[in-house]
Amino acid sequence: MAVAIGCRTWVVSGGNIPTVSHGEEPEFTSFDQLCLLNTGDGDAAVELTVYYPDQEPVGPYAFRVPGRRIRHVRLNDLIDPEPIRLGRPYGCLLTSSVPLVAQFQRQDTRLPGALALTDALGYAGS
Amino acid sequence: MAVAIGCRTWVVSGGNIPTVSHGEEPEFTSFDQLCLLNTGDGDAAVELTVYYPDQEPVGPYAFRVPGRRIRHVRLNDLIDPEPIRLGRPYGCLLTSSVPLVAQFQRQDTRLPGALALTDALGYAGS
Amino acid sequence: MAVAIGCRTWVVSGGNIPTVSHGEEPEFTSFDQLCLLNTGDGDAAVELTVYYPDQEPVGPYAFRVPGRRIRHVRLNDLIDPEPIRLGRPYGCLLTSSVPLVAQFQRQDTRLPGALALTDALGYAGS
Amino acid sequence: MAVAIGCRTWVVSGGNIPTVSHGEEPEFTSFDQLCLLNTGDGDAAVELTVYYPDQEPVGPYAFRVPGRRIRHVRLNDLIDPEPIRLGRPYGCLLTSSVPLVAQFQRQDTRLPGALALTDALGYAGS
Repeated sequence: MAVAIGCRTWVVSGGNIPTVSHGEEPEFTSFDQLCLLNTGDGDAAVELTVYYPDQEPVGPYAFRVPGRRIRHVRLNDLIDPEPIRLGRPYGCLLTSSVPLVAQFQRQDTRLPGALALTDALGYAGS
Repeated sequence: MAVAIGCRTWVVSGGNIPTVSHGEEPEFTSFDQLCLLNTGDGDAAVELTVYYPDQEPVGPYAFRVPGRRIRHVRLNDLIDPEPIRLGRPYGCLLTSSVPLVAQFQRQDTRLPGALALTDALGYAGS
Repeated sequence: MAVAIGCRTWVVSGGNIPTVSHGEEPEFTSFDQLCLLNTGDGDAAVELTVYYPDQEPVGPYAFRVPGRRIRHVRLNDLIDPEPIRLGRPYGCLLTSSVPLVAQFQRQDTRLPGALALTDALGYAGS
Repeated sequence: MAVAIGCRTWVVSGGNIPTVSHGEEPEFTSFDQLCLLNTGDGDAAVELTVYYPDQEPVGPYAFRVPGRRIRHVRLNDLIDPEPIRLGRPYGCLLTSSVPLVAQFQRQDTRLPGALALTDALGYAGS
């Protein structure tokens, strides 16, 4: 039995998907990304709620991370219940049926010939 | 009832608003930013105290983060009680009436044709 | 006797070694890197398990961090039991015989004339 | 009485001062930096021990952070007991007489026309 390491609740407050991209797709496409690792044996049922400055939260965005697997979820790619609009501040609350670890990354290629990356551990709630 | 996740005290020690910007405003304006997410139902009354290397702290900078909302606060934009000067090291202590989550980000466009971003979780005090 | 500070379990979920490099080697070679610090007197026996989206985990990758030493391990350089392929999402679980501290860094020189770096503390499991 | 927030022990494992700089000094000089915030009223007496891959640790590097002040310490600038050499992996252990908060930042201008920044919270030991 593999142990499920991490937390069931994670918060990322600094979302903002860059508005444009330069360079070859998909390698240089701008993105915001949640990087999830489920070290346990059982599937993680994950739900995401997305928060905005000026409207009610949207969600849940539901997906699974299988046991003993990672999943890198590009926030740009979520469409159900609705896409996250580009260039707009947002945050998200992740809840999982089993403990996992969540990192937040951004690739920003808005400026031609430049490449910016960020990486931050999410806030582990409980 | 939505649960207010996070802490009431956050510390960021690495502030330094870049002195100049290149590129179109406001998209490429240099900034230091606090990204706050209040998952609870009630408003968060937030107070910021700004620390410097060589003078007494300045504050409080007061603002609110409504319940179930995010707010990305550009430190460049704070003017009351006084603006934070550019290119000068500072840090800040955030206290909130309810638990929330605070991330710190910088966009630096001092160098023409270059783009630098950083992202770090704040230190969760209590 | 020096105290061994940190944790015996660390998780990094956001791995993805950049596919190409530009600039002089080895200074500008793209990499993903684990930065380990063992403040204690005794050696740390470290084991790494690497997780993927679509196959069973691979490992253990075993190495040592001597007492009172740091070791920066480029994930690109691991070959036993098998290399981590470039441009593919992965995560890793680190377990150590003694407490240590683990930071995760990336250098990305895929784009000629650009330089992107990221830095994030690992998730401290126990 | 202002409360001293944070920890007395911090660890940064991912040090490596970039070897060269491009652009105007001091604004674009490459650096590794510890950003310290002492929210308490009393001075913090700080001691740094620097760890390497292949030799005994060096230290203590001693300095103070006055009460209610920040201090951004460029690791490049430390000279007593000896300078940290450029382009060489290192880590550090910070101990303080009072609780404070420590963030680690890098500015890298090795590549002309490019700018890379990183930011990571230190590991809070105790």
